[in-house]
Amino acid sequence: MSGHFSHKVASNIRTDLAVEARQFLTQQGFTVPGVTVKEDKGEYASVSWVEITSPEGAQAMGKPPGNYITIESQYLRQTNRIIQEEISQILANKLKELANLGENAAVLVIGLGNWHATPDALGPRVIDKLMVTRHIAQYAPEELGEGLRVVSALAPGVLGITGIETGEIVKGIIQNVAPDLVIVIDSLAARNVERVCTTIQLADNGIHPGSGVGNKRLALTKETMGVPIIAIGVPTVVHASNIAYDVIETLLGQMKGEIDLGLIGKLGTADKRQTIKAVLGPELGDLHVTPKEIDFLILNLSQILSGALNIALHPAVKEEDVYRYLQ
Amino acid sequence: MSGHFSHKVASNIRTDLAVEARQFLTQQGFTVPGVTVKEDKGEYASVSWVEITSPEGAQAMGKPPGNYITIESQYLRQTNRIIQEEISQILANKLKELANLGENAAVLVIGLGNWHATPDALGPRVIDKLMVTRHIAQYAPEELGEGLRVVSALAPGVLGITGIETGEIVKGIIQNVAPDLVIVIDSLAARNVERVCTTIQLADNGIHPGSGVGNKRLALTKETMGVPIIAIGVPTVVHASNIAYDVIETLLGQMKGEIDLGLIGKLGTADKRQTIKAVLGPELGDLHVTPKEIDFLILNLSQILSGALNIALHPAVKEEDVYRYLQ
Amino acid sequence: MSGHFSHKVASNIRTDLAVEARQFLTQQGFTVPGVTVKEDKGEYASVSWVEITSPEGAQAMGKPPGNYITIESQYLRQTNRIIQEEISQILANKLKELANLGENAAVLVIGLGNWHATPDALGPRVIDKLMVTRHIAQYAPEELGEGLRVVSALAPGVLGITGIETGEIVKGIIQNVAPDLVIVIDSLAARNVERVCTTIQLADNGIHPGSGVGNKRLALTKETMGVPIIAIGVPTVVHASNIAYDVIETLLGQMKGEIDLGLIGKLGTADKRQTIKAVLGPELGDLHVTPKEIDFLILNLSQILSGALNIALHPAVKEEDVYRYLQ
Amino acid sequence: MSGHFSHKVASNIRTDLAVEARQFLTQQGFTVPGVTVKEDKGEYASVSWVEITSPEGAQAMGKPPGNYITIESQYLRQTNRIIQEEISQILANKLKELANLGENAAVLVIGLGNWHATPDALGPRVIDKLMVTRHIAQYAPEELGEGLRVVSALAPGVLGITGIETGEIVKGIIQNVAPDLVIVIDSLAARNVERVCTTIQLADNGIHPGSGVGNKRLALTKETMGVPIIAIGVPTVVHASNIAYDVIETLLGQMKGEIDLGLIGKLGTADKRQTIKAVLGPELGDLHVTPKEIDFLILNLSQILSGALNIALHPAVKEEDVYRYLQ
Repeated sequence: MSGHFSHKVASNIRTDLAVEARQFLTQQGFTVPGVTVKEDKGEYASVSWVEITSPEGAQAMGKPPGNYITIESQYLRQTNRIIQEEISQILANKLKELANLGENAAVLVIGLGNWHATPDALGPRVIDKLMVTRHIAQYAPEELGEGLRVVSALAPGVLGITGIETGEIVKGIIQNVAPDLVIVIDSLAARNVERVCTTIQLADNGIHPGSGVGNKRLALTKETMGVPIIAIGVPTVVHASNIAYDVIETLLGQMKGEIDLGLIGKLGTADKRQTIKAVLGPELGDLHVTPKEIDFLILNLSQILSGALNIALHPAVKEEDVYRYLQ
Repeated sequence: MSGHFSHKVASNIRTDLAVEARQFLTQQGFTVPGVTVKEDKGEYASVSWVEITSPEGAQAMGKPPGNYITIESQYLRQTNRIIQEEISQILANKLKELANLGENAAVLVIGLGNWHATPDALGPRVIDKLMVTRHIAQYAPEELGEGLRVVSALAPGVLGITGIETGEIVKGIIQNVAPDLVIVIDSLAARNVERVCTTIQLADNGIHPGSGVGNKRLALTKETMGVPIIAIGVPTVVHASNIAYDVIETLLGQMKGEIDLGLIGKLGTADKRQTIKAVLGPELGDLHVTPKEIDFLILNLSQILSGALNIALHPAVKEEDVYRYLQ
Repeated sequence: MSGHFSHKVASNIRTDLAVEARQFLTQQGFTVPGVTVKEDKGEYASVSWVEITSPEGAQAMGKPPGNYITIESQYLRQTNRIIQEEISQILANKLKELANLGENAAVLVIGLGNWHATPDALGPRVIDKLMVTRHIAQYAPEELGEGLRVVSALAPGVLGITGIETGEIVKGIIQNVAPDLVIVIDSLAARNVERVCTTIQLADNGIHPGSGVGNKRLALTKETMGVPIIAIGVPTVVHASNIAYDVIETLLGQMKGEIDLGLIGKLGTADKRQTIKAVLGPELGDLHVTPKEIDFLILNLSQILSGALNIALHPAVKEEDVYRYLQ
Repeated sequence: MSGHFSHKVASNIRTDLAVEARQFLTQQGFTVPGVTVKEDKGEYASVSWVEITSPEGAQAMGKPPGNYITIESQYLRQTNRIIQEEISQILANKLKELANLGENAAVLVIGLGNWHATPDALGPRVIDKLMVTRHIAQYAPEELGEGLRVVSALAPGVLGITGIETGEIVKGIIQNVAPDLVIVIDSLAARNVERVCTTIQLADNGIHPGSGVGNKRLALTKETMGVPIIAIGVPTVVHASNIAYDVIETLLGQMKGEIDLGLIGKLGTADKRQTIKAVLGPELGDLHVTPKEIDFLILNLSQILSGALNIALHPAVKEEDVYRYLQ
């Protein structure tokens, strides 16, 4: 099967990761025009760089044009500080490549999510560990050391607690703080359970409604905010129906040839998902799940991400110092 | 299919809930001798009382003989304090029936689990909200009001943090505190994702190795501890392979008649699980998952359980006062 | 001694509470023109209403003109939910009197302070327990019940973590949310250790630089923000030198007549503080202290304040329901 | 004044630190027989080693005979990871000297205090960051690397939450775990506000009733527990009356000669305290205070202490690796 796809397909993918969307399409036999991929397999992490260059590619992938860098490592689920420092460094390098910041550019970091819902707490926890300097630059510039950029940060909270759209809050801050770049940290939903807490995605085109673990209705993009926006996301949850879907795909793959799959063997992707949804709907509802070790995983990831941001944003912070600054 | 089952079957169920084990066996067409069931459907909660009376029943169910009371309510996933007070009262009544405590009997409550792993934190959080009185009875008995029983409590922590088996710790406490009854609170693994955080199980025969979210190697039973033990468990996680299994069962059920299922249609329960494990093993590994709202769910449940314990253990505490004592 | 005072005196008081400033001045023998006081002693709490009406009064008190309501109760340090509900109701009534809100007026609640510094965490914790409704009013107005006002809320974090002045953040939010009234919750510094966590102050003229436990440089007032601002503050810390000062005052009062106090007996207020500062400075530095039970006290207070706000802002919420909505 | 002292004097000191007791006595002009002191001033920390060798010394100091090592450093109140590693190493060295452990000796670490009361949470937080190995040694000895000692740990909670004396719990654990040494971590009360969170005390004679931030009634000593006990304590609170006392002492010292102090100049230590108590009693009550930055201070200290324990107990853990193991 090839060549034909619809928005319906992409929207059925239920993934915030470009690399998953592409993998999924490829597995289904689609060729995806207007999408280029570079891959780089390191000792501790694989890096893939997906660029969506055409509207057709965007439609197929269910994502707007832009650059999507994915860092994948099973080490993100373990405690090995030495390897984590390596991954922090890789992430810092990719962030610097993507952001291409001028020496005096000021950066605002936004940590989306809910402090009190562990799988959604990554953003706020990263904010807590950042080296912010804007107030020093403003009130005691002589104390701001060499090699420290003007950085500010905010964890705005979630709609259910504030009653205010994240986008409205961030817009208000940008108007008053006037940064040259905004970096947004967010927890994402993965399509595949294997990706949960093993993947970090950077994208240079912001955050779009409906993505993330929470529920955003207003895009955080250069168009809406007036400033370039880089999103750093980590999938921390997966919809239970995706586990179901993968199980069936895997099983059908194994059974091919052995048995006559009848109707189901002939179903297209969207229809298969439809069938699964019809069958499982009442049972699974809108259930998102997360690994039972999520408290530990979020702690680990918040250290890796804040370490990477501190290295990438402040030239004076060296890799070997990363854990000295964290609490 | 009927009549035949093996320990292998039961051990494949991967559930800590007697009501699930029985349901599973019944669905498979087994009749289970030596197991009686009473059911009572209330407005806000259903209560089922499973009694395993014979070794044969015990083998089929994969659980030792004893009484297993299950309280099921979808309201456990919502915030409605009035209904929660009702469920606290139901749980308190069942606990009193099962424990049948003498007026002066002293009770020790043990909260198993890990404060810092949310799905495993139910036990310690319940301990935090209990009204303990043993120290008052011991050091200032004149201050212990009427209608207050001698209650003590401990959250011993988990093996990975203490390096000590829970059973060893509890045994040491019992030797020094000499309670008439021990109540153990624990997070459990469910077989079915629907039961996660919607079910409370009481059992009068203790806790057995390998059950619960953590990893216990020493039984907490009357035999090992020398005191009657009541276990109160709430499933907070489910193994990902169980979601997979249910998906396939449901789907095969739907497709029956429509297609020739070939080999898989002829597989028995254990073999089907074996097949699933072989197919999914490398992908799912030993992954347990929990709902993404787990922080809120554990908070809710800890209030319901501690409220129920306070009513059940102290005659002086009235239902309407339950939320006055919680923090 | 009477009649003469200077800004130096007032600035030496180191208190955020109007009632303390007045008490202090009165004790020193000053008459304070342009300041009226009404007092009301209830069973569980005393309420005093200080109004500063003249610039002279403002200078003497070290506080801008406006209304300052103080609710004092030793019960704020204890756990008695029934009395706490009473105090929530008193606070709600005073807030309604002071705010005098139109039926459709929208309110934004700002919780100042730092989630991760317990004595400064009151604001963020109150925000967490509020019933916010603005998002419902905006996206699903048909679901917004009768008697629920449009309420939004934000805990902006502290300068050391965000690098952004609280005032800049709040200004940005107000521009986008356009509330009719802003209520700001803050932890304060008391002059007298007895007031710590036993006093709640409401003021109708906002928050001024240098007040509060944190360090604000930008006023939150109607002038700077363009909206009326009510501040609700609770003293949670006291400067160690104030404990010292009170000790000496008390002791000297006791010894009067018995001994010749020489120089120190002749010192004025400001000079006495100067002497104390000179003597203790190197030792006490800039040390603020808080009771060792602060975690419990903040939890208690956050329930009382959020309960009061929920009653005061939403006509549909009744006193007896307050604890049903809290988590 | 010299030579004469009474138990009343010592008991009025209200300090858990031997170094403070001795300093206090020396300042009062007492010579203290049966007490030897060695001091060592390093770049980042001062170490003093007080040995109480006679019953007379014990009575004067209000502490039982034994070795008391005090590490003092203002850096304990700051975040400088490099200096903190130095202090961890100093603490590890002193602990090794004091414990003099055989190669195969098993150690049990007990973290006293209350997770949910920040100034009393040091013990439980240290336990959380320890490398425990006893379970590995027991269940998978082949996985226990070289240079790792058998270590177990427990945070038993506080009397108000458990209803059980800490001593009873620890006794039960010792009976079942049979360690060769018990190390107990505790939060202490200092007499002087300057010592709060700047001092670490090691003592080789256990924990005595009435010491610590909490309220213990049962001693944890070799006599009661049957195993040698080392106590590591950090003062985290100070009684408000001690701040008062120091203020008056300092002020009176300054005023000597200038004025006739009358009666108060002639008071002995105990009487002066009595006077202060009489004057301040109704106001200060039994108020203990802690610095407003206590959350940060406890976090810092828990990392230093757990780092030191990991180095001291496990030969395989190197100083430079300390922060790699912490979370």
